[in-house]
Amino acid sequence: MDKVAIALIQHSCSEDIKENEEKALNMIETAAKNEAKIICTQELFKTRYFCQVEDWDYFKYAEEINENNETIKKLSKISKEYSSVIIASLFEKRAKGIYHNTVALINEKGTLAGIYRKMHIPDDPHFYEKFYFTPGDLGYKVFKTKYGNIGTLICWDQWYPEAARLTALKGADIIFYPTAIGWLPEEKEEYGESQYNAWETVQRGHAVANGCYVVAVNRVEFEPSPDGNSGIEFWGQSFISNPYGEIIKKASVNKEEILISEIDLKMIDETRIVWPFFRDRRIDSYQEITKRWID
Amino acid sequence: MDKVAIALIQHSCSEDIKENEEKALNMIETAAKNEAKIICTQELFKTRYFCQVEDWDYFKYAEEINENNETIKKLSKISKEYSSVIIASLFEKRAKGIYHNTVALINEKGTLAGIYRKMHIPDDPHFYEKFYFTPGDLGYKVFKTKYGNIGTLICWDQWYPEAARLTALKGADIIFYPTAIGWLPEEKEEYGESQYNAWETVQRGHAVANGCYVVAVNRVEFEPSPDGNSGIEFWGQSFISNPYGEIIKKASVNKEEILISEIDLKMIDETRIVWPFFRDRRIDSYQEITKRWID
Repeated sequence: MDKVAIALIQHSCSEDIKENEEKALNMIETAAKNEAKIICTQELFKTRYFCQVEDWDYFKYAEEINENNETIKKLSKISKEYSSVIIASLFEKRAKGIYHNTVALINEKGTLAGIYRKMHIPDDPHFYEKFYFTPGDLGYKVFKTKYGNIGTLICWDQWYPEAARLTALKGADIIFYPTAIGWLPEEKEEYGESQYNAWETVQRGHAVANGCYVVAVNRVEFEPSPDGNSGIEFWGQSFISNPYGEIIKKASVNKEEILISEIDLKMIDETRIVWPFFRDRRIDSYQEITKRWID
Repeated sequence: MDKVAIALIQHSCSEDIKENEEKALNMIETAAKNEAKIICTQELFKTRYFCQVEDWDYFKYAEEINENNETIKKLSKISKEYSSVIIASLFEKRAKGIYHNTVALINEKGTLAGIYRKMHIPDDPHFYEKFYFTPGDLGYKVFKTKYGNIGTLICWDQWYPEAARLTALKGADIIFYPTAIGWLPEEKEEYGESQYNAWETVQRGHAVANGCYVVAVNRVEFEPSPDGNSGIEFWGQSFISNPYGEIIKKASVNKEEILISEIDLKMIDETRIVWPFFRDRRIDSYQEITKRWID
């Protein structure tokens, strides 16, 4: 099976978690009905992006990720009915006092095939994730599915060539990045375009360097900061890049969208034969990449 | 010193080595006269790109790289007179039977500060470099100069995020890539634009991921293959990317050019504070990057 339709679920979130979940489930089901075989949510799709502030109260949103989780059950039902793989980004409570920013992969049989826990955790104004999320300890993950080998990374991971490379080295045909990124209104005019372009460029670069597809799924709309201190205007523009780093489909900047596109996995083999980057890696010379800085 | 003018020397090459060298030296001197303080040549600037074929005869072009090398002496003279750093790409004869694709860095005092030997060696139709060049064994290099910390990589290296990362981790403010890349006429119509864009994108991605400047210096014009078998149309378009991955200056596709631009090294500090990617690298999780493939 070389051609597979994938779907990116881009939407806004209100303060009503139930409403967000229902909306996302409806969009996922619509995508599945329309023959999408791999469907990916945006990051933390059930809630507003609560990491804009550090508030203990938000830990209530976290949930155990297993077959008994209510959202997983609902997703599994859709997954099984339409034989679609679903990648869902959730706030995981792993233990009392250990929380992760996690992706669950439900395979085309409706089975929870496994999880990935965000490895790189940001901490910047309006993105206080180090407060909520313990850095992942499962390493990089690839799930072999009926529709291809799926690599999963999350948002801040997308700035790290090491994460993309290690996921590709594990065999990923497509790397999915559920994301929550946007403009701070006070910066947008001066830096907005540069920030957006850098985000898109670095991910397209991963696609080129690794000869694979890269998919980013972002949310839309302005979410005010709960402390009344400005907010984030999420920049949407979820996209799919082919192994040449070309954007083959991109969602709008401000509208909810089910972005569906057929991709051709044969292109991975073809690109890597013509540009055999993996053949020539100098693996004898990369040891120091495990250093913080080479003084 | 935060602001520094850099120059990219983009030109064509004939079969006459003396003529090529004189042209390049003139362009370098003109750049230096115009206040360029870091000047970089294209890859193997003294000759046509002879790697289009495997021919023992071309080893005669190789030379020992040291203070007594005639080209180094001429470059040192210019360097010293104008207090400019020069990065020169040369075919190195290291020993009988050991040849490298090498960059020499001459500092602003006219001293040969050191060399870098191309680590990643391609071998593809019209780019038979594995025949000529032993892979580098000096690792990744950064030269601390009066005008900033200069990282040097060469052409095929530019597809490898590991090379850019390791050079950045050694403190590079600017990574220079002398290059010889172009279109094969038989592929240009179908793949030409994609190939060019992938090349530019992956390097802009290195600039973003590493928060540094990236500079690529390429040659121009069509060079026929010595075996009469088509040839390469070098695509010029030497460029400078800032730490946001934005191209701040780019040369034409087919003209000889001395591309001079002032860059602001303060932007590196500023970008890395706002986007602290180095802070959050998961160096505990990158060990397997030294594997060929993770089976």
